[in-house]
Amino acid sequence: MKYSIGVDMGGTNTDLGLVTENGNIIQRRNIPTNAYTEFEPYIRDLMKVVDEMLEAQHAIDGVVPALEGIGVGAPNGNFYTGCVDNAPNLTMKGVLDFGKEIHKYRDVPVVLSNDANAAAYGEYVYGGARGMKHFIMFTLGTGVGSGIVVDGKLVHGCTGAAGELGHAILYQHGRKCSCGREGCLETYTSARGIVQTYKELKSEVGGMRSENEITSKMIGELAHQGDPVALKTWATVGDQLGLAMANAVTFSAPEAIFLMGGPAQVGEPLLKPLREAFDRYLLNIFAGTCQIRMSELRANEVAILGAAALLKMKE
Amino acid sequence: MKYSIGVDMGGTNTDLGLVTENGNIIQRRNIPTNAYTEFEPYIRDLMKVVDEMLEAQHAIDGVVPALEGIGVGAPNGNFYTGCVDNAPNLTMKGVLDFGKEIHKYRDVPVVLSNDANAAAYGEYVYGGARGMKHFIMFTLGTGVGSGIVVDGKLVHGCTGAAGELGHAILYQHGRKCSCGREGCLETYTSARGIVQTYKELKSEVGGMRSENEITSKMIGELAHQGDPVALKTWATVGDQLGLAMANAVTFSAPEAIFLMGGPAQVGEPLLKPLREAFDRYLLNIFAGTCQIRMSELRANEVAILGAAALLKMKE
Repeated sequence: MKYSIGVDMGGTNTDLGLVTENGNIIQRRNIPTNAYTEFEPYIRDLMKVVDEMLEAQHAIDGVVPALEGIGVGAPNGNFYTGCVDNAPNLTMKGVLDFGKEIHKYRDVPVVLSNDANAAAYGEYVYGGARGMKHFIMFTLGTGVGSGIVVDGKLVHGCTGAAGELGHAILYQHGRKCSCGREGCLETYTSARGIVQTYKELKSEVGGMRSENEITSKMIGELAHQGDPVALKTWATVGDQLGLAMANAVTFSAPEAIFLMGGPAQVGEPLLKPLREAFDRYLLNIFAGTCQIRMSELRANEVAILGAAALLKMKE
Repeated sequence: MKYSIGVDMGGTNTDLGLVTENGNIIQRRNIPTNAYTEFEPYIRDLMKVVDEMLEAQHAIDGVVPALEGIGVGAPNGNFYTGCVDNAPNLTMKGVLDFGKEIHKYRDVPVVLSNDANAAAYGEYVYGGARGMKHFIMFTLGTGVGSGIVVDGKLVHGCTGAAGELGHAILYQHGRKCSCGREGCLETYTSARGIVQTYKELKSEVGGMRSENEITSKMIGELAHQGDPVALKTWATVGDQLGLAMANAVTFSAPEAIFLMGGPAQVGEPLLKPLREAFDRYLLNIFAGTCQIRMSELRANEVAILGAAALLKMKE
């Protein structure tokens, strides 16, 4: 049997899974990323877990499992270099060369990209974008990421870091962004941006100030209970995201834009105003040519599947 | 000797040229597009001119010239269908199928795309983008067009009409656009948009109202004479275009963005604030990775060369 390993490197945890040819995760493990300040012991322990998974599979299958390769989705992951470059959220600093370090243990293909690109490719290989040549994935979470597929290939650009639509500027002189600039889409449609919008709308109607602990998930629940400020928050976010998506269509004319991540799970309170705004902001020549769809991969599987999917890339 | 024909179809005139393998236009002709309301006689006369050029070349070369094909750049040109679809500025209405009609006269490859895509491809084959895998062309003129190359290929998207960055919305609820929406880049950085900005700035300082006839070219001349309102106009346009270009970089991480068209000929009064704004709005991970450059093709040749270049496309 042939398997691949998908590695989802986050700032806190690194999740990894053994993935079958047709996209089933049949074993899952994790190691604590933030327990490491050095890259070598991190990879040593990661590869130990890989060995354990393959041995367990050997026992199950009765034959030595063939390993297609190791795919890695990581913040600031650069497809061309195979390195994670100075990711601000990691306890391991500097340039982390996954291929070089992993090859000390196993001589298998290693492919790395940033997490949003990996998610997009997972959708392409295993999810709702199968068979599409042009689509875009937006991931909403702590930040806002994107992965773009043009002519069946992930767009990496000349640097390896293309597809950063969360940092397209939506409003000139808008909200301050963690990237140091102003008005990035991320400052409005990330979990934090959504909370900020809710708080601003709440204070406009004279709401209480005791909501420091509110989360985008709670704002989602409030919306489903009919809370008008929560509903207005999602309508605002839908409008902003719809504008950003309509602008993205002028670039690559995708047949679909997929949406994933925690805040997107709210469903209709976001999706309805989003689709309305998208139609309103879309250039007429693209009317009816691009659907907005939710990711078809499970939220807790997409990162590992996406990382594994990177190995299916053809150049 | 081997030649191609480049056809630049405009609303008023259709310019065409006989182009050598290395991008020299050695014969040029034109026919009046707006003299035709039917497509068949238009193509009949176009092909008559093609015959005349080839016969003249036969006499010069002493051998029958080989024709590689006919490339067409046209408003609303669709690469996939080879048709011009209901272009609002043409006297010929409906769907104009160039390949089908031309093949009644000559059995040669016919490739068609919109004019901005053709210009981008001309830069790629014959101009400053030679050897680049990722770049974007912005064309400033009556409208604002764009052509995008990713991984060495023009981006056509699922519809054939990708690369419409002139209709990315720069300012939500901004200026009314001819497309029916609001705030498109084109309403600020086209020739008309630039004139509007000048008039707005002029009225702010209590300027006279007698400038109905002013053009973007005149505003360029005023800027070179040190006129403060003209300089402020170009600074504003540079800021707006710099923001749009920085946003485009988040999409495809190009190694260069090229600029062409009448208003761009003003030079430094636009380019200096444009480059400053671009640097200011660019996401830090892209700093220093993308140059803003003027097209290296002559303004009166780019359209024909671009159309001819389309024949060099490989799929």
